Amino acid sequence: MAVPSRQGARPTLEDVAARAGVSRATASRVLNSSPRVSAAAQDAVNSAMHDLGYQPNLAARTLVTRRTDAVAVVFSEPEPKIFDDPHFSRLIRAGARALAEANAQMVLMLVHSPEDQARAQRFLAGGHVDGALVFAPHQGDQLSAVARKLALPVVFGGRPWGSLRGLHLVDNDNEGGGRAATAHLLGLGRRVVASVTGPADELSATDRLAGWRAATGADDARTARLTENGGYTREGGARAMTELLARAPELDAVFAASDLMAVGALDALRRAGRRVPEDVAVVGFDDHPMIAPHTDPPLSSIRQDAENQVRHMIRQVLSLRDGEPVRAKREVLPTVLVRRASS
Amino acid sequence: MAVPSRQGARPTLEDVAARAGVSRATASRVLNSSPRVSAAAQDAVNSAMHDLGYQPNLAARTLVTRRTDAVAVVFSEPEPKIFDDPHFSRLIRAGARALAEANAQMVLMLVHSPEDQARAQRFLAGGHVDGALVFAPHQGDQLSAVARKLALPVVFGGRPWGSLRGLHLVDNDNEGGGRAATAHLLGLGRRVVASVTGPADELSATDRLAGWRAATGADDARTARLTENGGYTREGGARAMTELLARAPELDAVFAASDLMAVGALDALRRAGRRVPEDVAVVGFDDHPMIAPHTDPPLSSIRQDAENQVRHMIRQVLSLRDGEPVRAKREVLPTVLVRRASS
Repeated sequence: MAVPSRQGARPTLEDVAARAGVSRATASRVLNSSPRVSAAAQDAVNSAMHDLGYQPNLAARTLVTRRTDAVAVVFSEPEPKIFDDPHFSRLIRAGARALAEANAQMVLMLVHSPEDQARAQRFLAGGHVDGALVFAPHQGDQLSAVARKLALPVVFGGRPWGSLRGLHLVDNDNEGGGRAATAHLLGLGRRVVASVTGPADELSATDRLAGWRAATGADDARTARLTENGGYTREGGARAMTELLARAPELDAVFAASDLMAVGALDALRRAGRRVPEDVAVVGFDDHPMIAPHTDPPLSSIRQDAENQVRHMIRQVLSLRDGEPVRAKREVLPTVLVRRASS
Repeated sequence: MAVPSRQGARPTLEDVAARAGVSRATASRVLNSSPRVSAAAQDAVNSAMHDLGYQPNLAARTLVTRRTDAVAVVFSEPEPKIFDDPHFSRLIRAGARALAEANAQMVLMLVHSPEDQARAQRFLAGGHVDGALVFAPHQGDQLSAVARKLALPVVFGGRPWGSLRGLHLVDNDNEGGGRAATAHLLGLGRRVVASVTGPADELSATDRLAGWRAATGADDARTARLTENGGYTREGGARAMTELLARAPELDAVFAASDLMAVGALDALRRAGRRVPEDVAVVGFDDHPMIAPHTDPPLSSIRQDAENQVRHMIRQVLSLRDGEPVRAKREVLPTVLVRRASS
């Protein structure tokens, strides 16, 4: 077939249709991913577009449908953490599954530095996605300020720092979970319940600590003595547990604010010769299916349902996209204690 | 400030400029992420856009600059594998770093089912990214056919199955690595070198096996006896090693086609009471920095430089985007033996 007649000019949709041997309307339907086109016509049009180097006119397509059928999932975390902490892979897998069911493309973005955040903002503002799920737990994250400016549905996973004005979010009941874990340990007759906490710059961690304080009624001095930051890592959990044992050797129970830290605490207790649960009872937080049932002894833990959180976030973001009413702008999902042998 | 005058009509860029108290040209520059705008003006325009619910006209923006400054990184793998195999996290981290250095947003897409592939194709065809890095190693993947149709720079990591016509790719010298590993073991005086192979539907695995065959000169019968598929997993590597020990107890060396499988092989050898390297010498493939130096004993391995592969892929895709010449359409990066105590 001959090259398009107007040599040097950018090929038009008419050129594509001519080369593919279909009508302009059919070529347009292929371009707009309409289902009412035969596979043969689709292939012919796609090949013609490729051969001619046709650049679809985004303008025309956007006028037909503003939807991209893609949803961004944004994590404001250093990359190593995404792969080292199984909580993130659980969220990502849940997002991939639930978005696929909604026939939307998951577009995953890892942002960390201020430059990353600016770059992500430009992409999100560019009309490339229908909405975004954002996990930005750290103090200093700019993403909630960014979200407020974007003309794009954004739903946060967990509370970001700062004003919640105008934000949509789905949180877990972290404070309730921390209280339930601690009350359970006290209910077993334990006298000195310590806590391995998450980093102070994440609200999920300060909420879980607030739950521990509410249940123990500890004052500031007792809180300083009986709590230690394990940074939401296994090594940090072991370090914090060792520190607590040195500072308060009389402790007979520990609430670790994540399963990963609880595994570290179990390591440290074993090394210190303390039996679990006989000498020290332990409760984690997450009830991660790859961790809690498999520790030695199996770990009692506060269940937060990551899959359910992501499903709620996706429902909100798609409702916002489609202009449907959302049940609630801010949802807090319940957390429950799952008892195993460690307590 | 009053609501826009034409009530009910969609707000225009003029409305935004008026509300922000700036000129239309300034509002336009903010919209197009031009650097030549003060932070104050930027904030004012962004707030005005948000308050008015202004939807940027993608058409106008696309005419100004076709670039999105985003690059897709596509993995055609089941999600669990992405998180269980550290080779993938290494590629993703390298991609995030190198794209951030090029000031491009990494947009990560996990595709697996045929529906996923169709959805990814629609997104990639939609003008949302400047190019794509694609890892699609499995037989039956449609992504190379898709890439051929897209008017978008695409660079494959490793060879996809089927015709390479029109494709850009950066591969590692898998066959050369397999040959070097096996020749090294034979050079140590080992008589019977077995191989734990990767899955037969991945060309990286068949290439590494071809290298083993070239070095051993094994015929089909001997190949069937001395090789076993470990599926690129640790458990599979252990299973394959156990199988090989049962079938060929005289073996005194093993080339495992990935570090993860080599770890499984070491597990199985330990359980079988074979000393490494005294009874059985072992060489892996990847030289993964989180694995090879940390096994017991430390693992000799064929180094493939994942970071370098990703950098080459990004250089190609950005050159294609910018209309610059590429050095080579298909690059094959060298692999080298790194000797440690296991051989």
